[in-house]
Amino acid sequence: MTNWANRGIDLHLDLGSGRGVRTRLEQALRQAVRDGRLPPGAQLPSSRVLAQDLGVARNTVADAYDQLVAEGWLTARQGSGTRVARETFAEPSHSMPAPAVSTSAGLAESGHGQNCPYDLRPGSPDLSSFPLDVWLTASRRALTAAPREAFGYTDPRGRLELREALAEYLARVRGVRTTPELIVVCSGFVQAIGLLGRALYGIGRRQIAVEALGLPDPPTILRNAGLETVRLSLDADGARVDQLTGEDAVLLTPSHQFPTGAAMPPARRTASVAWAREHGAVIVEDDYDGEFRYDRQPVGAIQGLAPHHVAYAGTTSKSLAPGLRLGWLVLPPHLLEPVVREKQLADRHSPVLDQLTLAELITSGGYDRHVRRMRARYRRRRDQLVTAAVQHAPHVRVSGIAAGLHAVLELPADGPSEAELVTRAQQQGLALAGMASFGKGTGPALVVGYGTPPEHAFAGALQRLCTVLETTGF
Amino acid sequence: MTNWANRGIDLHLDLGSGRGVRTRLEQALRQAVRDGRLPPGAQLPSSRVLAQDLGVARNTVADAYDQLVAEGWLTARQGSGTRVARETFAEPSHSMPAPAVSTSAGLAESGHGQNCPYDLRPGSPDLSSFPLDVWLTASRRALTAAPREAFGYTDPRGRLELREALAEYLARVRGVRTTPELIVVCSGFVQAIGLLGRALYGIGRRQIAVEALGLPDPPTILRNAGLETVRLSLDADGARVDQLTGEDAVLLTPSHQFPTGAAMPPARRTASVAWAREHGAVIVEDDYDGEFRYDRQPVGAIQGLAPHHVAYAGTTSKSLAPGLRLGWLVLPPHLLEPVVREKQLADRHSPVLDQLTLAELITSGGYDRHVRRMRARYRRRRDQLVTAAVQHAPHVRVSGIAAGLHAVLELPADGPSEAELVTRAQQQGLALAGMASFGKGTGPALVVGYGTPPEHAFAGALQRLCTVLETTGF
Repeated sequence: MTNWANRGIDLHLDLGSGRGVRTRLEQALRQAVRDGRLPPGAQLPSSRVLAQDLGVARNTVADAYDQLVAEGWLTARQGSGTRVARETFAEPSHSMPAPAVSTSAGLAESGHGQNCPYDLRPGSPDLSSFPLDVWLTASRRALTAAPREAFGYTDPRGRLELREALAEYLARVRGVRTTPELIVVCSGFVQAIGLLGRALYGIGRRQIAVEALGLPDPPTILRNAGLETVRLSLDADGARVDQLTGEDAVLLTPSHQFPTGAAMPPARRTASVAWAREHGAVIVEDDYDGEFRYDRQPVGAIQGLAPHHVAYAGTTSKSLAPGLRLGWLVLPPHLLEPVVREKQLADRHSPVLDQLTLAELITSGGYDRHVRRMRARYRRRRDQLVTAAVQHAPHVRVSGIAAGLHAVLELPADGPSEAELVTRAQQQGLALAGMASFGKGTGPALVVGYGTPPEHAFAGALQRLCTVLETTGF
Repeated sequence: MTNWANRGIDLHLDLGSGRGVRTRLEQALRQAVRDGRLPPGAQLPSSRVLAQDLGVARNTVADAYDQLVAEGWLTARQGSGTRVARETFAEPSHSMPAPAVSTSAGLAESGHGQNCPYDLRPGSPDLSSFPLDVWLTASRRALTAAPREAFGYTDPRGRLELREALAEYLARVRGVRTTPELIVVCSGFVQAIGLLGRALYGIGRRQIAVEALGLPDPPTILRNAGLETVRLSLDADGARVDQLTGEDAVLLTPSHQFPTGAAMPPARRTASVAWAREHGAVIVEDDYDGEFRYDRQPVGAIQGLAPHHVAYAGTTSKSLAPGLRLGWLVLPPHLLEPVVREKQLADRHSPVLDQLTLAELITSGGYDRHVRRMRARYRRRRDQLVTAAVQHAPHVRVSGIAAGLHAVLELPADGPSEAELVTRAQQQGLALAGMASFGKGTGPALVVGYGTPPEHAFAGALQRLCTVLETTGF
């Protein structure tokens, strides 16, 4: 380490061998300017003097100076020598706080329970169960087998390998009727609803009904796309599709309403399709956890009843991990081109490596095996939750348990408020979400994401939940 | 395989063992409806008769019917038995043509040369050189080491591991001055420019200058975001930043103008910063191939001169592969929150697995090694291109060769037109792009992407290019 201390400046310059000295000298000078050790306007020693100080060739220093002048760090003027450029900028503060952004499951919550060791908020599967070895093996197999042009720009709908695998999988598991041509792979449901919203707007649609309770982001995104959102009431059977009239579209979670957990019965499913057909409207079917149905054969997607009227959205966020940001749209033919155009303008297409891996995982059967394993695990947790609630809080009604990774604990109206329970849970180290986070108009309730904790922590989380419910006097 | 042939319908039902019969029966019935073998309104046999035909329990058939009624495939009415629902839909045509979408490097070209065995169009690196083994090894190491919460929803800016690695890498290699807090990982440059456009619009900016020649998508995306785009002239030194006046922002490719290949000299770089500072304007610096500079030390990014006035965009599309869709924005502090908000609404955050892998690749030095190897390879190709052009087409002027993966062959004005050359090349099995694809206002020229072919095909592509240039009489 050569210190340029006799000039008052420590260049942190490790000269070492001769090769690359100029590069390292330049780096050291840039760093000194950045740090403020060489302040704006400061005079630098002549190349001759600095070369002597450092024991390097004078040309090396002169070349480094030239380069930094070219980059704008230094200025060189006849007669005034080489100086640090006057117009430099203070290093951006390292202590700049992160922007206020939510990182949980789409909840625009105020960070409630962010630091709790136990978490029963909905929106995430058990991340500790992500099948990493299976994924890595599939990845190696898929990427090694893929032609190298697969790593280039591809169809905006995504890789054909995945769209073929999805067409087969969704037909088999969700009763979806489509072809690979009508599938658009996208970055999770958030991107899907944005693409759809802009595509609908682009073809002249203006009004979309959204369920009265739900995640806050999708309506925001739809309004950003130019659409007007109107509230659609809910009851124990899900969205009141009988109240739909002249809207151009409706966003539904029919398999397992989020957050109430209602599963839409056959008559309503048929009614929604009849409405869409009569009005030439579009049903956007958010099938976010359709694979997880416990007490009977999964009910197929509405899309299978009306492929020309339903835009079906699926995701790996619950079946594998939200961090994959890997979802898909199955489109009615008239929406394909508008959505593809929006996808191209959004990001050309989704990343290919995970697509190739997921295609391999599906076709090899590994995806089905994982879903089956997780379904059994989540079902066990659900049963434990129901049993515990019945034992420890008999006045709490558990609902929404037929499917998915969350259930609803309906609280008696005369007890402590949701907010109180959430706060008490937090004191126990347990993060909970109240129904009020997802909209207004229902009685007090907790939305319990029993899928969220890692397997080893579920019992502890459940026990804390029971303690909270017990001590509140139920 | 049990044929339900005596009813005129082949159910493709392999009954096999007793377990899962109901599921398979349901699947077979759905498939028969889909295929049209069971047409809308068709009467189904009673559960008793079908059970007998198939040799299964009557309850099994009755349950399967119930399920399909619930899903809307079948209807059951007192007195009229079970029928296929009348309102079913024809299977979407499998022969539906793909929508007219470009899959090449952002070129809204008419598919010129899509099926040529040789390709010298710009916009893609040599995909056959993607370091797959290195990538897979880094992926396994990174994902195994990552905490499992890394697979969940994460910061909208992306994984901290990658933002830290990028802050260090970009400072070292591109002279970028930033912190991990000011970096937003995004899905390639296309998403980056969309986020920036909407963020600028959101804070009241309205007008952005764009270089007169370039890819067509970015201006479209900026206009979609609500901004007005104004043309900025180019000359041999790149964008004429002296012509900037009251615009709110400018989009520049200073390191290697696309497509002219000009490298902006120091005086202009300084002038652009002075303009931005004077007007409180933003420079959007598209540094798409900044790592590839051949004849001298890479010139650092403009961002390093003015971190508070430049939004810097980088990508792996040239250094690794466009299919990764992995890029980043380095933001001035005042744009961080608006861009983060747009990112959240676009797709919450970019996929995490590739981010973790790239972070590992950078910190392990593997990324630098790959870039160095490719820089030597592309430089060799560039030298071969220049030599060949001088030998075979002395009247053609080669320019834009200081950096990047493409060069420009300027054609004499009195020779054959660009379009003619592109057509002749196509007849030789060589895909070429003319300058006219990227805008108006220059003389005739070819934009030659010497980085595009796989290594083994470069000599053949170059030979065909020479043949085309020779036979045109130069």
